[in-house]
Amino acid sequence: MRGSEDWRQTFSGLIPPGPENRESMWAQMEELFPVYRSLCGPGFLQSLEIMRKYLPLEIVEFPTGAEVLDWTIPPEFKVNEAWVEDPDGNRILDFAKEPYSVWIYSQPFEGEVDKDELLEHVVTMPYLPDAVPLRQAYFRKAWGLCMPDNMLQRLKPGKYKVKIDTEHNQGFLRMGEYYLPGEVETEILISSYLCHPRGANDNLSGCVVAAELFRLLAQVPDRYYSYRLVIWPETIGPITYIDKYPDRLAKTIGGYQFGICGDDRPVRIDRTKRNNSVFDRAAHHAMLLCGQEINSRKFNIFGGSDPMHFNSIGVDLPIANITRAGSSTEGGYPEYHSSADNLDLVSADNLLGTLEIGWAACMAVDRARRYKGTYTATPFLSRYGVFPYQHGAGVGGNATIIGEAYYALMPSVDGEQDLLEIADWFDLPIFAFDECVSAFKKAGLIVDADAV
Amino acid sequence: MRGSEDWRQTFSGLIPPGPENRESMWAQMEELFPVYRSLCGPGFLQSLEIMRKYLPLEIVEFPTGAEVLDWTIPPEFKVNEAWVEDPDGNRILDFAKEPYSVWIYSQPFEGEVDKDELLEHVVTMPYLPDAVPLRQAYFRKAWGLCMPDNMLQRLKPGKYKVKIDTEHNQGFLRMGEYYLPGEVETEILISSYLCHPRGANDNLSGCVVAAELFRLLAQVPDRYYSYRLVIWPETIGPITYIDKYPDRLAKTIGGYQFGICGDDRPVRIDRTKRNNSVFDRAAHHAMLLCGQEINSRKFNIFGGSDPMHFNSIGVDLPIANITRAGSSTEGGYPEYHSSADNLDLVSADNLLGTLEIGWAACMAVDRARRYKGTYTATPFLSRYGVFPYQHGAGVGGNATIIGEAYYALMPSVDGEQDLLEIADWFDLPIFAFDECVSAFKKAGLIVDADAV
Amino acid sequence: MRGSEDWRQTFSGLIPPGPENRESMWAQMEELFPVYRSLCGPGFLQSLEIMRKYLPLEIVEFPTGAEVLDWTIPPEFKVNEAWVEDPDGNRILDFAKEPYSVWIYSQPFEGEVDKDELLEHVVTMPYLPDAVPLRQAYFRKAWGLCMPDNMLQRLKPGKYKVKIDTEHNQGFLRMGEYYLPGEVETEILISSYLCHPRGANDNLSGCVVAAELFRLLAQVPDRYYSYRLVIWPETIGPITYIDKYPDRLAKTIGGYQFGICGDDRPVRIDRTKRNNSVFDRAAHHAMLLCGQEINSRKFNIFGGSDPMHFNSIGVDLPIANITRAGSSTEGGYPEYHSSADNLDLVSADNLLGTLEIGWAACMAVDRARRYKGTYTATPFLSRYGVFPYQHGAGVGGNATIIGEAYYALMPSVDGEQDLLEIADWFDLPIFAFDECVSAFKKAGLIVDADAV
Repeated sequence: MRGSEDWRQTFSGLIPPGPENRESMWAQMEELFPVYRSLCGPGFLQSLEIMRKYLPLEIVEFPTGAEVLDWTIPPEFKVNEAWVEDPDGNRILDFAKEPYSVWIYSQPFEGEVDKDELLEHVVTMPYLPDAVPLRQAYFRKAWGLCMPDNMLQRLKPGKYKVKIDTEHNQGFLRMGEYYLPGEVETEILISSYLCHPRGANDNLSGCVVAAELFRLLAQVPDRYYSYRLVIWPETIGPITYIDKYPDRLAKTIGGYQFGICGDDRPVRIDRTKRNNSVFDRAAHHAMLLCGQEINSRKFNIFGGSDPMHFNSIGVDLPIANITRAGSSTEGGYPEYHSSADNLDLVSADNLLGTLEIGWAACMAVDRARRYKGTYTATPFLSRYGVFPYQHGAGVGGNATIIGEAYYALMPSVDGEQDLLEIADWFDLPIFAFDECVSAFKKAGLIVDADAV
Repeated sequence: MRGSEDWRQTFSGLIPPGPENRESMWAQMEELFPVYRSLCGPGFLQSLEIMRKYLPLEIVEFPTGAEVLDWTIPPEFKVNEAWVEDPDGNRILDFAKEPYSVWIYSQPFEGEVDKDELLEHVVTMPYLPDAVPLRQAYFRKAWGLCMPDNMLQRLKPGKYKVKIDTEHNQGFLRMGEYYLPGEVETEILISSYLCHPRGANDNLSGCVVAAELFRLLAQVPDRYYSYRLVIWPETIGPITYIDKYPDRLAKTIGGYQFGICGDDRPVRIDRTKRNNSVFDRAAHHAMLLCGQEINSRKFNIFGGSDPMHFNSIGVDLPIANITRAGSSTEGGYPEYHSSADNLDLVSADNLLGTLEIGWAACMAVDRARRYKGTYTATPFLSRYGVFPYQHGAGVGGNATIIGEAYYALMPSVDGEQDLLEIADWFDLPIFAFDECVSAFKKAGLIVDADAV
Repeated sequence: MRGSEDWRQTFSGLIPPGPENRESMWAQMEELFPVYRSLCGPGFLQSLEIMRKYLPLEIVEFPTGAEVLDWTIPPEFKVNEAWVEDPDGNRILDFAKEPYSVWIYSQPFEGEVDKDELLEHVVTMPYLPDAVPLRQAYFRKAWGLCMPDNMLQRLKPGKYKVKIDTEHNQGFLRMGEYYLPGEVETEILISSYLCHPRGANDNLSGCVVAAELFRLLAQVPDRYYSYRLVIWPETIGPITYIDKYPDRLAKTIGGYQFGICGDDRPVRIDRTKRNNSVFDRAAHHAMLLCGQEINSRKFNIFGGSDPMHFNSIGVDLPIANITRAGSSTEGGYPEYHSSADNLDLVSADNLLGTLEIGWAACMAVDRARRYKGTYTATPFLSRYGVFPYQHGAGVGGNATIIGEAYYALMPSVDGEQDLLEIADWFDLPIFAFDECVSAFKKAGLIVDADAV
């Protein structure tokens, strides 16, 4: 994209992500990582409380057992103690040391089982033999354990003592919310899921990038749209949101999920079902602006989690997924859903890179409105005091990209193309239009064709 | 396409073409080949009678002289005797030995002509000097002969005796029809033309593949659409059909012609004028499923014969042509429309390969319906007893393609995309959806948006 | 394109550009080149008078000071005398020798200035150090001079005598117009701008090609559309036209500007904002017909001048730019807007090549109408006496492209596709359809679906 190499200098009025965001995100990662989380339970609440130190999230609660769409909110899950002792009395698994050892939402169990019976309840990850896989028993009744495959291979015959002391308690599904009002009530939804125990890349990375984005959005003085952040548990979170907030959905035009955002792969967008919505185009625009090639996948089977539900039947909201590796089902990364998904896998620089593209995408969406020119053909700009002489136009030299934007705008504001389509057509950063749009508006040369 | 390498195993409930179809088609080819056919006449009738041994075609008749659209049904054509003797009295041409020697629908003639006059009535094929070309005098009055170019080059001066004893009799244009009712009366038209004398590739191959297809379609227990096969003479056949069956046309949504289906070239589709109709897409899907690259041409000048009329003005039905070499005007094959178009040019394997793709295309069309989800966002599948655990989904492993189809279906049944578009989007065989569509229907999770 | 190599022979009834047009255009170039022109003034009028020797243009006048849209028609500009003498009394610049020495529309000035003050009013062209740039002071009050950069580098300190004796007089903006009526009043607008002093490539080349085009169009016996040529000054010309002729605009469906048409680069089209209008497609078709690859740019920031205004808000007419080098802002040519843009830069052959493509594009637009077949399926052509036997069709050989056009036409005249879309689909020159369209019309087989 023309002008992408020095956009931070050219558009110096913007407040893009910087080193302080990098530090803030990493501090948050380190503080959140050790907490044991599940869909609902004390760890999820504790994690939201940690995040509130960085962004004043409001915590909302929905009681266990409530019907949401045709789902039911699960109980809170808590592990008091869980371990396995081998025939020699060695404690070979211990939740206290490795929280992945017990299935999330495992039923309690206590007893002595022989090796064969034990194995029916044990899952390993043969291609990462030292790692403990993540396994859950959501929405079904079962007990189970996870161990390194190397351990499984060395288990000796005999009786094993198993203790799984878990609780499934009446309680709450919790979401952390943050709302930034804009000029209009039409809103953009930004989401991320916080339900995995540990999981540095999947998905603390997504949560901290999404939250940091709102610290930046809060500094934008003239937001057009309103922005809402929701941090929830996967699947049942968005299902609950869709059920409980029809009024909000009616005002929402789409948004982004941030999921798996901290590894070394380039930032990618998993597009919406609409395939070419403003959110898809804005992410592409942001990649080009930030000097990255477009890295984009069409709507796919797992849809990056939240997008699967929002793009679906009866909701039809274009929510795209901003990610790096994406989930394992599409190539992904080998440590996905295992104890190896730790802080070594992610970096502060990668979080910052994802944040930059996410921020630029939101800035592009916010500007991607439709304008209608009030003039015929070409206005005599000098009469309105808006001629771009200061940008090299009209005096025989070459106009800068800000000067070019005046010329690009004039024939294009037909009330049908949005400003992002215009910017993409002329291969200009959408920020290059800030000045001329503002000047044309003030002069009455264009009016908002999108007014809500 | 994912899953194409072992689709016959994966979708074991289907009844795809097999060795018995191969044998049946070849037997039919051998029996049909020696018969001398023309648009209307005893050979056409005899050929339909042979085909009835394999598929119970109904024979319908339209009398000579009837006006159909602005055409007129021609008389029946019959050759009693036709030969040429050279100045030395050698019989150099004889219909009894080589039926291509006389133009189809040639007027009778008897007399002595010198070489120059003879040549005005003789056609050869210089690029295949040993072959006798196929030439006709449809819808105009002329007499004529065909010979190998090698023979023409050696003709000596002098008087030639010519006898062409042909009859143009009041009689009938005949079609062979076969109808398979489905769940709805909406019908798919499958056609082929049987009017060429001999012509193994053009076009006995098309007739036997089309007829064999109906032996397979008859075994499909749950056809959605009704299927109609018509075997007719080229051009005047479809013109008559269009004139005589407006009620059928009103119920027809499109279909396929099978023409030139037995040579060694890969199966090809000559697309409909609409260019991206379900029949076009289904043929592409079938090619990928059957492990062949898409081989496709846009609607062209000769349109593969029947498609030219059906895709045209006032009819506008998307009929595509399933072929191999296609007609000579687009590259084609050198033996086209000559005595060299014999059984050596075609093989039972090639017929089977064309049948497989034609069958798979019909199976895809039959499934390519629009469904509308009755749920919001994502249903809680277990509640309906339809969760694809048995296909590896939801238990931490990788789902099979049948399992993936559940996830592909859920966000996509918007009542606008048809199932083939959904399958193509997710690069899945449409057969992978049979289970989830059936389960979702039974559970009331989707309803038919196409109901006629 | 099939048939492009010998289209002049195949379609011998046409009157395409030839050597006499080449000579006529070059004579006009030589006569026009020495005249000093500006937006309004005696040189512009003198130039129109020269052009009238070749094509009977009507000269229309709009008075200085008139408001047109939100612009004002400028005064006539005239340079009586302009020179600079260096501290030694040498006359280093003289308008009489180099008319680019003074800014167009410069205010008058007389006085002695030291070198530094002089330099504030001097513009050079460092990358063409021997050339004098073209600079203007349109719509603002300033005095200024241009000189070769080599001269500027050698200026010595001291006092310079400057005399700029210019007049800004009440007078007229003038346009040269020529109108050719067609079968319908719907009109095609062809424009070019004549306001640059000298400027062989930019833009005498465009003016003479556009005018010569009308000498050819005048010889077309059966023009469907009406054609209007307007030669005006850049920007204020089309603005005035748009303001003054709403009735004409209402009848205009689009057209072409000819701008920068004589250099050695291949002919190019700068497309309309609609991007795929009949004018865009016709130019592509013309390039292929004339044996050139498609050379095409999408609507861009400067839009080739006139197109910028016509494609814009409140007018929305698809006017494309037919050019070679295009303006400097898109790569262009180094001599653009300088004294080096002289007759050495252009050639009669290049003018002829541009004319040929422009002519063919207009011929294609004129034929690009929508027809509706009155028959069902396929008419029995012989009954109407229109069967293309004479073009090799239907008698066993290969049809010529004129014969093929019959087959291409039959299924395609659906009242939606225009004839150019049909020709492009079948890769045939649109001229190949002249015969069958005429025959089908006469037989009542098609009717005009575009009738105005």
